[in-house]
Amino acid sequence: MPTVREATFDLLRAHGMTTIFGNPGSTELPMLRDFPEDFSYVLGLQELVVLGMADGFAQASGRTSHVNLHTAPGVGNAVGGIFNAQANKSPLLITAGQQVRPQITMEANLTNRDAVLGPQPYVKWSHEPPRAQDVPQAIARAIHHASLPPRGPAFVSIPMDDWGAEADEDLERSALARAVTGRAMPNPVALESLAERLGNARNPVLIAGPEIDASDGWDAAVALVEKQRLGVWATPATGGGRLGFPEDHANFLGVLPPAIGPLSETLEGHDLVLVIGSSVFPYYPYIPGPLLPDGTALVQITSDPSEAARAPMGDAIVGDVALALERLLDLLGPSERPSPERRPLPGEPAETEPMSGSMAMAALADVWPEDGIVVVETPSSTVTLRNRLRLSQPGSYYFSASGGLGFGIAASVGVQLAEPARPVVCVLGEGSAQYGITALWTAATYRVPVTFLVLRNEEYMILKWFAEFEQAKGLPGLDLPGLDVASVAEAYGVPSQEVDTREELAEALRAAIAVEEGPRLVQVPVASGMWLD
Amino acid sequence: MPTVREATFDLLRAHGMTTIFGNPGSTELPMLRDFPEDFSYVLGLQELVVLGMADGFAQASGRTSHVNLHTAPGVGNAVGGIFNAQANKSPLLITAGQQVRPQITMEANLTNRDAVLGPQPYVKWSHEPPRAQDVPQAIARAIHHASLPPRGPAFVSIPMDDWGAEADEDLERSALARAVTGRAMPNPVALESLAERLGNARNPVLIAGPEIDASDGWDAAVALVEKQRLGVWATPATGGGRLGFPEDHANFLGVLPPAIGPLSETLEGHDLVLVIGSSVFPYYPYIPGPLLPDGTALVQITSDPSEAARAPMGDAIVGDVALALERLLDLLGPSERPSPERRPLPGEPAETEPMSGSMAMAALADVWPEDGIVVVETPSSTVTLRNRLRLSQPGSYYFSASGGLGFGIAASVGVQLAEPARPVVCVLGEGSAQYGITALWTAATYRVPVTFLVLRNEEYMILKWFAEFEQAKGLPGLDLPGLDVASVAEAYGVPSQEVDTREELAEALRAAIAVEEGPRLVQVPVASGMWLD
Repeated sequence: MPTVREATFDLLRAHGMTTIFGNPGSTELPMLRDFPEDFSYVLGLQELVVLGMADGFAQASGRTSHVNLHTAPGVGNAVGGIFNAQANKSPLLITAGQQVRPQITMEANLTNRDAVLGPQPYVKWSHEPPRAQDVPQAIARAIHHASLPPRGPAFVSIPMDDWGAEADEDLERSALARAVTGRAMPNPVALESLAERLGNARNPVLIAGPEIDASDGWDAAVALVEKQRLGVWATPATGGGRLGFPEDHANFLGVLPPAIGPLSETLEGHDLVLVIGSSVFPYYPYIPGPLLPDGTALVQITSDPSEAARAPMGDAIVGDVALALERLLDLLGPSERPSPERRPLPGEPAETEPMSGSMAMAALADVWPEDGIVVVETPSSTVTLRNRLRLSQPGSYYFSASGGLGFGIAASVGVQLAEPARPVVCVLGEGSAQYGITALWTAATYRVPVTFLVLRNEEYMILKWFAEFEQAKGLPGLDLPGLDVASVAEAYGVPSQEVDTREELAEALRAAIAVEEGPRLVQVPVASGMWLD
Repeated sequence: MPTVREATFDLLRAHGMTTIFGNPGSTELPMLRDFPEDFSYVLGLQELVVLGMADGFAQASGRTSHVNLHTAPGVGNAVGGIFNAQANKSPLLITAGQQVRPQITMEANLTNRDAVLGPQPYVKWSHEPPRAQDVPQAIARAIHHASLPPRGPAFVSIPMDDWGAEADEDLERSALARAVTGRAMPNPVALESLAERLGNARNPVLIAGPEIDASDGWDAAVALVEKQRLGVWATPATGGGRLGFPEDHANFLGVLPPAIGPLSETLEGHDLVLVIGSSVFPYYPYIPGPLLPDGTALVQITSDPSEAARAPMGDAIVGDVALALERLLDLLGPSERPSPERRPLPGEPAETEPMSGSMAMAALADVWPEDGIVVVETPSSTVTLRNRLRLSQPGSYYFSASGGLGFGIAASVGVQLAEPARPVVCVLGEGSAQYGITALWTAATYRVPVTFLVLRNEEYMILKWFAEFEQAKGLPGLDLPGLDVASVAEAYGVPSQEVDTREELAEALRAAIAVEEGPRLVQVPVASGMWLD
């Protein structure tokens, strides 16, 4: 008779989930003992980092990934990362240890008193099985919850004395045999009606969101855009966790501004706005205005019922966006509309001393490998990065759609582990690097060949920009003197250097990207400023 | 007419809460603008660190302290620290920014969708005011919730457009005028009955918990123990966040073992066990046995109704423990019982290569300043630290009673800021140091003169000890190669050194403790092992 632990590992194996990201505590040892040789464990030194690694791994691999956490305090440290994973629609199985059952009611030390309640607002399902033999079934259910649209994290709390109990063979066999699939074609009638509206529209435009990439809808989106001669905006960078459309495509118009008024102004003149795989919209900051221009209709397609429900305007169709795009492509013939005007190439970057964020991104663009992947956590240079890299392959861009920090370094490690053949570059500010800094140790120790590029401006620039926008003065806590990520990275075992000119930066990045046996870090001082082009 | 912001700062000022620990985001800028000159802002680079600093500051100052966090992702990163603060009964006002009210229902980017639900399991009160003018009142209420027994964190979410609104002067005036006090004398009849039981007991013993220190009950505890000739155990180290009794006192017997069976065995022969200011008990790990020996009765005094309710055995009396101790002292005359035998002085520490944890603690004891404060996060050397320092002044010891990591460095910074005249030493493992490592930057940047002592054993020793206890083999993730905290600390601006011998260590610690203008770090390699004496 297998134990609960053996049955669980059989189940994980059957789902191809043989990588576990974790930070262990005593309550996890009964699960991790006799760790099977066909599994690998990736250690993070703090729980936010563990979540970030698994989030990157899950998104880049497209498969549900497993995070194992320590009881209450470990789960607590991970909550920011769980929030990020939900915003990123990242399918995660999160398991956490719990006190032995005989010591929970008395709330002995390390009891996860609110095991189910704590993560509940941030996960699709939160559960603690009432009996040991239900553990494998609960884990199977969590995997299905995480994998079904909209994807996201699911949580199971497991008392540490459960792992050695006898499994229920019928439950185990049944769980192993299940196939659960959730990609649903939107209502065909709604799609036919939409195709008709789109075909008849005078000047429609498409807004591409991250779900196009996550659903493998990239090719269908390009084909539809070309057939129908649509202009394409990317959803605002604030919510653009992934790219839904090639940014060097002739029909690509740029990234939408993120505030209500300017976004609406940008859509002036369009009679139909088709939003695919994005919330409507990830607005920030608040600049009031009409939600849409007069005479503009909006239709959103999303697999996420919550995104459909909460949009303040427009119609919504719920279902898989790749299937919807393919269906629209079938339903529509070629259009004779004039194609949109091609946007200009980026201009020369601003010349400043030290260099501008735009210059740093120009240097990165100079050496950018065609199959490169960028993980972004540099709020004051995200827009110039988008403009200068103009990424044009699926799965090339990851950003935390929650607006949370502490994702970048860790996620880049996870992405690189999932995509060993593609070079991964993680672009960070020295301030944002701090929230999950210890992921550098995992990168060094597991020899994960990410290239880290740190833009150092000695401040929280994005906050200074917001302060100016809000005409707020006299603010504490916005300066970051003496924060040298290159030295910290060296201390964690990541070979690092600091450079000053565009040529040095390009050369250092080229060399770092070429390294295959471990991470490298390049730091460059940049001037104060928001870099938009 | 004052704004909500002005009214709030008036209120904070009236409560003496002029230090704000924070990590700002855009949603906090409208609160922090025109930051008053009589306030100070202590910047932490990650939210767990911000919580830890405020937790240490609140515990050491005895006053409710203010933490300001960024909306959802910032609060998320802090949850582990909020959990710690609740276990530590640390009075904290936690405020967090929120989207502007017009963008919450549409869930624009950075909306704290579950602002109230998220922290709820971990705080005494969680609230988002429904109107801007209720913000000062909500903050006043949160301060009272945090300050009333049992102390703990309280949370208020504040939409960013509220700060500029007009305050309600009547509400503000009324809030400013309130005095709320919560230290309650336990039922006098119950104390009289307890005094009689104690006076008549043949062989009673006292178990001292952290609340004695937090309630300033130390002197009364010593007087009662001497008058009644009681032996005193400290509650198990797992839940001993503070010390309730001088550990070099002639009547002090040591620290109780933390598991059910051994703890019960330790109490054999006592007819009455009086537990003051501790849960019954912070058990860990699980070693079954009788909860109490045959013929032993237990009475707990605690200000925390939850601690009283959940204890699996014994009677409980709810009320302030210092007031209870003073009352018992009045009610009882001197006893003629024989005093307990004095426990022996620590023996010579184990000689190993590299040195043992016991040797490292002996070196610390060699140079320990009488008024020193230790903040502890070194699971495999906590017991030897207690045995060798035998701390005997109130407010000398802080440990996270939750079992959570990421408290130590940050809390030591907060304790030192609250106690500028006393030397603070933070004793860490290199593994536990990683959860909140960036607090080193705050220590360096604010020139907070904590001495950090890092015991480096290249492993999670406490987990290897548990694994041996559980006879678990083949565990991943327990080794920590190449984790050099001294180098990381140097990179964050903390002058650091590594030493190898007891004499070098004592000398390095003596020199570091003498420094008054900023932090110092001393790292020492230690041998693998749990160090208990």
